[in-house]
Amino acid sequence: MDGARPVTAPRGTTLTARSWQTEAPLRMLMNNLDPENAERPDDLVVYGGTGRAARNWASYDALVRTLTTLESDETMLVQSGKPVGVMRTHEWAPRVLIANSNLVGDWANWDEFRRLENLGLTMYGQMTAGSWIYIGTQGILQGTYETFAAVAAKRFGGTLAGTITLTAGLGGMGGAQPLAVTMNGGVAIVIECDPARIRRRIEHGYLDVQADSVQHALTLAEQSKAKREPLSIGLLGNAAQLVPQFLANDAPIDIVTDQTSAHDPLSYLPVGVEFDEWHEYARRKPEEFTGRAQASMARHVEAMVKFQDKGAEVFDYGNSIRGEARTAGLSRAFDFPGFVPAYIRPLFCEGKGPFRWAALSGDPKDIARTDKAVLELFPENESLARWIELAQDKVHFQGLPARICWLGYGERDRAGVEFNRLVANGELSAPVVIGRDHLDCGSVASPYRETEGMLDGSDAIADWPLLDAMVNVASGATWVSIHHGGGVGIGRSIHAGQVCVADGTDLASQKIERVLTNDPGMGVIRHVDAGYDRAEDVAAARDVRIPMAE
Amino acid sequence: MDGARPVTAPRGTTLTARSWQTEAPLRMLMNNLDPENAERPDDLVVYGGTGRAARNWASYDALVRTLTTLESDETMLVQSGKPVGVMRTHEWAPRVLIANSNLVGDWANWDEFRRLENLGLTMYGQMTAGSWIYIGTQGILQGTYETFAAVAAKRFGGTLAGTITLTAGLGGMGGAQPLAVTMNGGVAIVIECDPARIRRRIEHGYLDVQADSVQHALTLAEQSKAKREPLSIGLLGNAAQLVPQFLANDAPIDIVTDQTSAHDPLSYLPVGVEFDEWHEYARRKPEEFTGRAQASMARHVEAMVKFQDKGAEVFDYGNSIRGEARTAGLSRAFDFPGFVPAYIRPLFCEGKGPFRWAALSGDPKDIARTDKAVLELFPENESLARWIELAQDKVHFQGLPARICWLGYGERDRAGVEFNRLVANGELSAPVVIGRDHLDCGSVASPYRETEGMLDGSDAIADWPLLDAMVNVASGATWVSIHHGGGVGIGRSIHAGQVCVADGTDLASQKIERVLTNDPGMGVIRHVDAGYDRAEDVAAARDVRIPMAE
Ligand SMILES: NC(=O)c1ccc[n+]([C@@H]2O[C@H](COP(=O)([O-])OP(=O)(O)OC[C@H]3O[C@@H](n4cnc5c(N)ncnc54)[C@H](O)[C@@H]3O)[C@@H](O)[C@H]2O)c1
Ligand SMILES: NC(=O)c1ccc[n+]([C@@H]2O[C@H](COP(=O)([O-])OP(=O)(O)OC[C@H]3O[C@@H](n4cnc5c(N)ncnc54)[C@H](O)[C@@H]3O)[C@@H](O)[C@H]2O)c1
Repeated sequence: MDGARPVTAPRGTTLTARSWQTEAPLRMLMNNLDPENAERPDDLVVYGGTGRAARNWASYDALVRTLTTLESDETMLVQSGKPVGVMRTHEWAPRVLIANSNLVGDWANWDEFRRLENLGLTMYGQMTAGSWIYIGTQGILQGTYETFAAVAAKRFGGTLAGTITLTAGLGGMGGAQPLAVTMNGGVAIVIECDPARIRRRIEHGYLDVQADSVQHALTLAEQSKAKREPLSIGLLGNAAQLVPQFLANDAPIDIVTDQTSAHDPLSYLPVGVEFDEWHEYARRKPEEFTGRAQASMARHVEAMVKFQDKGAEVFDYGNSIRGEARTAGLSRAFDFPGFVPAYIRPLFCEGKGPFRWAALSGDPKDIARTDKAVLELFPENESLARWIELAQDKVHFQGLPARICWLGYGERDRAGVEFNRLVANGELSAPVVIGRDHLDCGSVASPYRETEGMLDGSDAIADWPLLDAMVNVASGATWVSIHHGGGVGIGRSIHAGQVCVADGTDLASQKIERVLTNDPGMGVIRHVDAGYDRAEDVAAARDVRIPMAE
Repeated sequence: MDGARPVTAPRGTTLTARSWQTEAPLRMLMNNLDPENAERPDDLVVYGGTGRAARNWASYDALVRTLTTLESDETMLVQSGKPVGVMRTHEWAPRVLIANSNLVGDWANWDEFRRLENLGLTMYGQMTAGSWIYIGTQGILQGTYETFAAVAAKRFGGTLAGTITLTAGLGGMGGAQPLAVTMNGGVAIVIECDPARIRRRIEHGYLDVQADSVQHALTLAEQSKAKREPLSIGLLGNAAQLVPQFLANDAPIDIVTDQTSAHDPLSYLPVGVEFDEWHEYARRKPEEFTGRAQASMARHVEAMVKFQDKGAEVFDYGNSIRGEARTAGLSRAFDFPGFVPAYIRPLFCEGKGPFRWAALSGDPKDIARTDKAVLELFPENESLARWIELAQDKVHFQGLPARICWLGYGERDRAGVEFNRLVANGELSAPVVIGRDHLDCGSVASPYRETEGMLDGSDAIADWPLLDAMVNVASGATWVSIHHGGGVGIGRSIHAGQVCVADGTDLASQKIERVLTNDPGMGVIRHVDAGYDRAEDVAAARDVRIPMAE
């Protein structure tokens, strides 16, 4: 893309912008584009198919220029990766407001989106790409780890030792799968059609070995399974071809899922298309390509359904592959569930979700100090402690050092206020940003993923993420975003994000306390409203106000 | 509906709530349901088909209960007419945040909406119904007056004297049409199938007479036309039947439009269905009814197209009737334009739109004082002066006294700050609320109406209303709303609203200054971004910051 150049966030305590409240979004924008984080930095693509941090390089330059001079009572407005205004607000207001990829319902489809994208009028923001809080594959690792832990708890006595998981996709998100499986003690075979992605995951310690063939992969997997030892195996090839092949071989697979970029058919390689021709072909004939990709996904999903018929634990891992397969005519596409209703919703009822933070100093010691703070704040939480230890051991930081863990209502605010205190008293060398994925308890409407199968049938109601965004703006977040189409693709989701900056000031402490109470509070009230008992218990126990019940 | 009762807002200066910042939304919610304003108050329907102020009466009670006790650093969250949470925020934050009728794109259709509505999970908020800033038919009168003035300027030498306008619909919005035409000196024939609506508009002084037949209407119209005298004529019947009849009679019609509730096919009476059977039939067989309504709309629109062929000025008045007619197979449905690209967009480029305010005292003298203030602030604006005088003469207040006029960027903030000053120094007997329609310059994405035919093709991009909502939250509005489907129906629009309370305090003055700068500012930057020269001139002349141009 015109204007491409390598980008890395500044480290240390020297400010480029006028305050930490604006330095933080500046560094996090740059950090999203750090080659250690971004999948295709030259095209401003961070992860998840074509999830971008800025519309184009001219927009990137204007974002940087504006953030550098923004005052503490001004707010920059960003429309799909392009800064479109600066307005005078006040000190409690966010410094940046972002809306990415949003379309009116009847026009919310990939064709219209691409038409507008080609006109230069929009970009795809995914979830944390366009909202500047992507923290590398690590960001997804803990969620993936928790999901496989939930699978282990549900079906395999609390561990994946002695099981084989078959999946595909080693991209920005999917790359977390092999490590999450081995952290749970299991064996993973991960199919990926891009040799560079396999190499990269091995280099970063997320993947152990590469197999030469289906047979080789199975031999390696069965050896480790027999010894109940963890092992992750990459396998080069097309999932739509190889998953049916594993099935035909009667492979002893226990768990099947997938994280190819199925949400965007142009990002899924169809059977019969050479890897090297992929992007040129998709660009030239998007409709034909889409048809072929969907047909391949139908084959892929059909094999997954049959694995379930044979007794395997099978789930959609949030990439909408079932929806695409159904479009291609596979009637049984939705026979297996999404991962949220299967494993995650009980956590959402407690306001839990992927809480994350990053050290603006660039110093890994700052993250070590926050790790310690979290362990001290929640001594009774054993799985949290196990996660933090594993992460310290296994996670390679990408870009600015960062950490993620799932915390709930009444916990996030305590962690945030404590981090701010550590900045104030100098135990941390610089401020930290505190945010989360848009895949959170109260911030997303996505009927094929986060809100699939809600108890009251309210899957498609999108008032909640919009209220979440507004209440974050009203509570003092430093930047807030509303996106469309993240995870599952255009037309299928609306979601919001927020990031706070712990700069050690009193004002920041007050803001953090409110934002990190109200934002997970949206998860509690959303699930109370839908009729979940667990959410009602949490609301009652932790004093969440529910006007209809008063 | 269960729990129905008559509702009127309290008048005077005794507070029911804890401050004017919460008293104001309380009174305005009640004012929306005042029988003088609401079309079907027992069902909580305010206007525009089924645009509601609250989900049901239990929700209404909870809204009132919560507003009555809400503190000045708390915020109530409203999800489609039902209060779902109260959260601690701060003094600059809105007291109420509202999201109505929002659905994820692929589910944004009437079928899914009705399924969810029947489950009690959502409501249709229209624009100002669910956001509590409807001020009766007057609210639309000025916009309608301006539109017909623009028609007069474009085609008829600046006046409608000597012209006949043919239209339909005398509902909450459509009821403004006859008066807006006569205010411009013209003759209007308005078809309406509900005899009560015709009676009501005559009682309120919006309509002059009722004709007995097409022939009678034409005779009356031609007499006045010949004398170049204004006259408005109601005609009972079905527009899908009578508009073609006027055409067949070769009636000398100069202007044709329509304001039946076509955006919601269940609110359009099909030919052959008795008026008394309408709602029961629509409830029992919504799909069959929809098909019949759309077929009738095709007949109706076909006659409009033919009037255009014969040289009449024809436009869609924002009810999406062209879209429904096209669904029914009429290929020429979009042969005539929407009113926005035809007449309104140049105003939007200046940040102009339907600015409005209401006197919480209930005292008409307060509005008279604000009228005077507006005339003094903008002495050079002649059409504004003409409008205020006509309004003082012709407009009957409905519910709390209110006024509307179109002001632009750099004007609204001055008016708002001045009103607040008048509250502070006691020239107004109580605070006023200052808001607007969602049909405004920068607050809506609606490809069949407000954003039809944008210069750059960005009609469907919905980032703008979401940014508008967020920047209003960030600027100090007292309540802010994000709605879906207003005006043109589910799947076809996303839009935002804001209301400020001028309570005479210094804090209110600061908030008002920011909100009433930034909110119309969204209109300017949205149209700059789309490439309108007029908007670029306004931005340059009035110092609106455009980061890409710096
Ligand atoms: N479950 C979650 O929490 C979650 C979170 C974010 C995103 N997602 C979804 O997961 C998917 C993957 O995200 P990502 O960031 O890793 O995307 P990505 O684009 O970075 O990676 C996708 C990978 O799939 C590979 N691939 C494509 N087609 C293939 C085929 N036919 N066979 C084998 N490999 C193929 C690509 O080469 C690429 O490496 C997306 O759809 C995303 O929306 C899920
Ligand atoms: N242009 C604008 O500024 C603007 C603003 C708001 C709303 N609208 C749109 O205008 C339309 C009217 O709004 P409203 O508030 O007056 O709605 P409403 O429901 O209060 O009134 C509609 C009227 O149309 C009548 N009607 C329905 N079918 C008919 C038929 N076949 N023949 C004759 N009369 C018929 C109904 O009896 C009713 O009186 C809506 O679609 C609304 O979305 C336009």
